[in-house]
Amino acid sequence: MANRKLHENSLNPFFDPQSIAVIGSLKEGLFGGLVVIRSLLNAGFKGEIYPVNPSYREINGLMVYPSIKDVPKKIDLVLIITGARSVAGILKECVDKGVRAAIVVSDGFAERDEEGRKLQEEIVAIARQGNLRIIGPNTAGIANPSKGLIPNPYEMGYEKVKQGAIAIGAQTGMINPQAFPYGDLGYGVSKICDFGNKADVDECDIMEYLEGDPSIKAITLYLENIKDGKRFLKVSKRVASSKPVLILKSGRTEQGARVSASHTGSLAQDDRIFDAACKQSGVIRLNTFRELFELPKIFAHPSLPKGNRLGIITFTGAVGVLAIDEGTKYGLTVPLLSSVTRNKLDAIFPGLGNRIVDIGPPMAVINDYMSFYSEVLKTVVADPQIDSIFNVIWTGPSGEFVDNYLKIYRGFQGNRKPIASWIYGPRLSYAQEMARHLEDLGFPVFSDIEMAIKALGIANQYANRLCHNNK
Amino acid sequence: MANRKLHENSLNPFFDPQSIAVIGSLKEGLFGGLVVIRSLLNAGFKGEIYPVNPSYREINGLMVYPSIKDVPKKIDLVLIITGARSVAGILKECVDKGVRAAIVVSDGFAERDEEGRKLQEEIVAIARQGNLRIIGPNTAGIANPSKGLIPNPYEMGYEKVKQGAIAIGAQTGMINPQAFPYGDLGYGVSKICDFGNKADVDECDIMEYLEGDPSIKAITLYLENIKDGKRFLKVSKRVASSKPVLILKSGRTEQGARVSASHTGSLAQDDRIFDAACKQSGVIRLNTFRELFELPKIFAHPSLPKGNRLGIITFTGAVGVLAIDEGTKYGLTVPLLSSVTRNKLDAIFPGLGNRIVDIGPPMAVINDYMSFYSEVLKTVVADPQIDSIFNVIWTGPSGEFVDNYLKIYRGFQGNRKPIASWIYGPRLSYAQEMARHLEDLGFPVFSDIEMAIKALGIANQYANRLCHNNK
Repeated sequence: MANRKLHENSLNPFFDPQSIAVIGSLKEGLFGGLVVIRSLLNAGFKGEIYPVNPSYREINGLMVYPSIKDVPKKIDLVLIITGARSVAGILKECVDKGVRAAIVVSDGFAERDEEGRKLQEEIVAIARQGNLRIIGPNTAGIANPSKGLIPNPYEMGYEKVKQGAIAIGAQTGMINPQAFPYGDLGYGVSKICDFGNKADVDECDIMEYLEGDPSIKAITLYLENIKDGKRFLKVSKRVASSKPVLILKSGRTEQGARVSASHTGSLAQDDRIFDAACKQSGVIRLNTFRELFELPKIFAHPSLPKGNRLGIITFTGAVGVLAIDEGTKYGLTVPLLSSVTRNKLDAIFPGLGNRIVDIGPPMAVINDYMSFYSEVLKTVVADPQIDSIFNVIWTGPSGEFVDNYLKIYRGFQGNRKPIASWIYGPRLSYAQEMARHLEDLGFPVFSDIEMAIKALGIANQYANRLCHNNK
Repeated sequence: MANRKLHENSLNPFFDPQSIAVIGSLKEGLFGGLVVIRSLLNAGFKGEIYPVNPSYREINGLMVYPSIKDVPKKIDLVLIITGARSVAGILKECVDKGVRAAIVVSDGFAERDEEGRKLQEEIVAIARQGNLRIIGPNTAGIANPSKGLIPNPYEMGYEKVKQGAIAIGAQTGMINPQAFPYGDLGYGVSKICDFGNKADVDECDIMEYLEGDPSIKAITLYLENIKDGKRFLKVSKRVASSKPVLILKSGRTEQGARVSASHTGSLAQDDRIFDAACKQSGVIRLNTFRELFELPKIFAHPSLPKGNRLGIITFTGAVGVLAIDEGTKYGLTVPLLSSVTRNKLDAIFPGLGNRIVDIGPPMAVINDYMSFYSEVLKTVVADPQIDSIFNVIWTGPSGEFVDNYLKIYRGFQGNRKPIASWIYGPRLSYAQEMARHLEDLGFPVFSDIEMAIKALGIANQYANRLCHNNK
């Protein structure tokens, strides 16, 4: 517990610094120190920003310092984006200055060659000795939207990331804002962290740091290797007992592991051992890159399903059948609706269905389709036989549908049953608009039928495990 | 063979009619005969359109006839969109008039209740006796964009569907233009057919009809049941030996099959039997609804891969590792590039990689990134050790990237190796724009890493099977 407290403290300056020094090139370009500084300013970072570069006096209205030691105030976090060979020297200056946290964006370390591996060992030694934590090297860095902290080294083409309940960590920059369209999707995230080569801070450190943050409702990780198997087992088990931990692990095959070793400078591992560790820890193992972003969304909902009974509202029977098939994989069943519900549905429109509620036929012909839709939704959600809902939405040929649906969903925000939606329609833009606004209202939307069902399935499995653990 | 010829002929009026009669309500609304007529006019259908309805004289500049028998000319196809109980009478008039093809959009047949089942038997008897083929009932109908033939009964909010090399058939309207954004995606399709209840025309009829059409390079089907197992085995085997047949079959689980039976009025079947039939026939079995649309795209490319050796161009090592892992599932390997290629790549930029070509680091820092990109692409595509390419494209923060990439790809249109692309980036709109334009140039784009790899994997498996069959 003491150790855990220490870890939480030691990562704090990364995600909540009062001041950042940015050390590296300030030239115009798609990558570099200037991009970091502009990203911080655009995202509304309130702390101090100290650009460090001997060739400049001022940039974007900020004074530029020739070196770290020339910065007159305390520095909580440094971000280093220079050539690999100058990193060690800079870190020594950081230690002298009392800096406790450094993000080393620079590449050319263990992922490159033998010389790089030695440089990496050297910077780790400096950090350990100087009580300094390092994220990276070879990282796209971190983000904490709630603090306007988006020190992104790559130009991303948008300014803000929405604050949310999901934390994403990865051994790749594919999760950072220059790679994933957080802005356009309105994807809410609490913390982002690319561990890079994991020379110091690794998946266990991050899990421990995120564990205590009550704003985080799910942790999702992309890993290519595990730095310390025993610690992983211990930490993941503890963290996964208080919040869901989802992991996509690549390097599962021999060739994949070998290539991974060459680009991250890490050792290959037997996938079966990792799989067994996940099962023991209660970690949810993911299968695709898309799942890394989508599945955690189900846990951002205020409540978990109370059981495995799935209700389905659809515009077409086929999607219902696909959903039932898929649900079986995760132990979900689609029960007969309660007699009260069936009677109410029959009164709304005869033949809506006793299990799958297929509103397609009436929606095509009914005049007051919105009050019809609202009544059906209310009735199915209220059914005591149902624990969660797969909700299929057809957006129709015009924006009018989207607006009208959203009016109805605004009235459902207080509901306590998970509703996973899949949205489709003849116009991509309306479906996307609907998805974005529905998520803003707190209803997760999934890009596939199967993804929505899997989300409800793992939510139920997770709820079961929690319940079992607490017995 | 005689039988096959007959089938081809009997479905021809559905997809290439010189005249269509549309029988049903002409009221304004999202669904109905008026929508069908407007869809035909909007899509540029060149044949005659005969609206049939006793309450109107003229609609959209077209003369309206009180009944089928009042239409003075020959009618190739009728589309019926009336109450279920009036369909039999209309079909009798059609038979008298010598009509050979009817799309029965009307629902309320075997999928509804016992009365509906009897009505369905009645209309099938009329059709059989009168040498009339029926698609449906309970169908959203068909489309043939090359003829401007989009008689869509539901308002879809756009006018045109791009002509392409893929035919899509399904036991659901989820493949029709009111449900799938053909327009916005620029998704090219040759024929669309919702079989509905399959009272007459079924999956085998369609496969036989599509078999002889040289413009079709892949057939993709969504089925909930098989009408005639023996015939399916025979027909699918023959058709799959000349072009790829991909099938998503639902009703795989007991509960799914039971619910399917209730909404399509069809009998449940053992999924293991279907699975064995697919293996025997060489049918490619699909797992998700998204695959139904995405995987056939790989077959629209002019050539199949000559072997299982996959080249990877990526902006980040992690995606390469994920791709290698995934490729293993389908027998793909990622070989060491040829020494010529490695030398050329080293001359372009040192450290690009010997297996996975990771262009991320240079792309972030290089000035003339487009000539760099073009050279890398050319070099990897030319490698004789590589049979197909997984091509990852990062669209960058601005539209400039998209335009520049597309200039380069225009120069690659003659290439004969399949290139499957996955596009990502910080702005959704640029990634989507890039995808659409790249597909217009003939390069299939997939929405997931894993989907792109699976597409290349099944293309190679299909090529192997063809080769084996021809030995």
